Amino acid sequence: MTSKVDKTDEADEIDETGQAVPSDQAIPTHQAIPADQSPAPGTRRPGGRTARTRAAVRDAVLSGLSDHGYPGLTVEYVAEHSGVHKTTLYRRWGGLEGLVADALDLAGEDAWTPPDTGSLAGDLRALAREVVDAFADESRAAAPTAFIAASFQSSRAADALHAFYTERFSRCETVVARAVERGETDRDTDAAALVRAVSAPLMLRLFITREPVDTALADQSAAAVLAAARAGAFTRR
Amino acid sequence: MTSKVDKTDEADEIDETGQAVPSDQAIPTHQAIPADQSPAPGTRRPGGRTARTRAAVRDAVLSGLSDHGYPGLTVEYVAEHSGVHKTTLYRRWGGLEGLVADALDLAGEDAWTPPDTGSLAGDLRALAREVVDAFADESRAAAPTAFIAASFQSSRAADALHAFYTERFSRCETVVARAVERGETDRDTDAAALVRAVSAPLMLRLFITREPVDTALADQSAAAVLAAARAGAFTRR
Repeated sequence: MTSKVDKTDEADEIDETGQAVPSDQAIPTHQAIPADQSPAPGTRRPGGRTARTRAAVRDAVLSGLSDHGYPGLTVEYVAEHSGVHKTTLYRRWGGLEGLVADALDLAGEDAWTPPDTGSLAGDLRALAREVVDAFADESRAAAPTAFIAASFQSSRAADALHAFYTERFSRCETVVARAVERGETDRDTDAAALVRAVSAPLMLRLFITREPVDTALADQSAAAVLAAARAGAFTRR
Repeated sequence: MTSKVDKTDEADEIDETGQAVPSDQAIPTHQAIPADQSPAPGTRRPGGRTARTRAAVRDAVLSGLSDHGYPGLTVEYVAEHSGVHKTTLYRRWGGLEGLVADALDLAGEDAWTPPDTGSLAGDLRALAREVVDAFADESRAAAPTAFIAASFQSSRAADALHAFYTERFSRCETVVARAVERGETDRDTDAAALVRAVSAPLMLRLFITREPVDTALADQSAAAVLAAARAGAFTRR
């Protein structure tokens, strides 16, 4: 789970860009370049030392959240498991809240796309089943659960979680756009509400009522939302 | 928000029943008598000192959760705001986790019943609007939000929250039972899933994605679930 970067990287990682992080912007979240995008000239190399350092720090944060939860996570733990010096972590991420928020930002930079099964029914069912699959295994569920826990204790983590889910659900809306193209649903469907309604009964049980979820529940949620969409319940007035 | 019990109550409250709480059951959750039930002969008086003490402790826990959240709540705070001595709190509730769990148990002993508007459409809309109303006001939302936060940090709080919501949603199922009586929905409707589906998109936005909710969203959720029910999506196979 933890990946160490070469210790020799750590001493000069800040020198790479030739500038220190300004003190009023200690968390370089929005400067960071995802590995699959081309950098503007003169900026950091994608997949270079900075990206590797950030990924190592993210992995250490995830493993710390999985093992100890947010209340038990420390900057010392992240330093030890990432191989990045504590003073560097404080300088670049500001502290624990910044580390957690950046790990969430980085999680949101993956290449995930919603399922494309050829029908709205199939896509919604696949989406719901992904939620169940992601949380059925306790070890896979530990880090996302810890992110949600952290959001109750840190407004920075809450903002990052909000941004993560807003962006994630906006990717899901592709499923509705394709259904509109196929003539399966109204052009003025509230796609944001529709895709949230599929996951919501599962997330409610997983994180609030603490009840078990399974494939049958996923399929039921998908079928209910499909029936509601067909009846025009998600059509904007 | 905080209510003090008379200091003179505190010293002898344990003597009232003539017995100490057994050490393997330091939290007298299920022995406690709700104020609106008749006690068996020889047990504590309803509305008596024990019930008043428990309510005062609950109020102090709620105000502490509202003001400081779970991470900031201390037994000292509860002692100070309830007028019940710290050693008594430890002896009877075991500590902070027990105090929070008992406050949730007590919250579940209220006389709340689901709306009865005469139609499934009206009842579901009223249920959804209650969720929005309960959390629209930040001061009203603080304690329930803190309970959910606590459930991520304390397995005792998580168990108590699970019990609270299981019981609360089972009260909501009355709405479906009445709809079945009126012939509005199938006799073999999965009432538990149906009532959860109404609140779920609102709870998801309130506690996980941190997005605003309003009456229009409540009505949309109720309408979607009604349409799904009419289409048989909640009918057990």
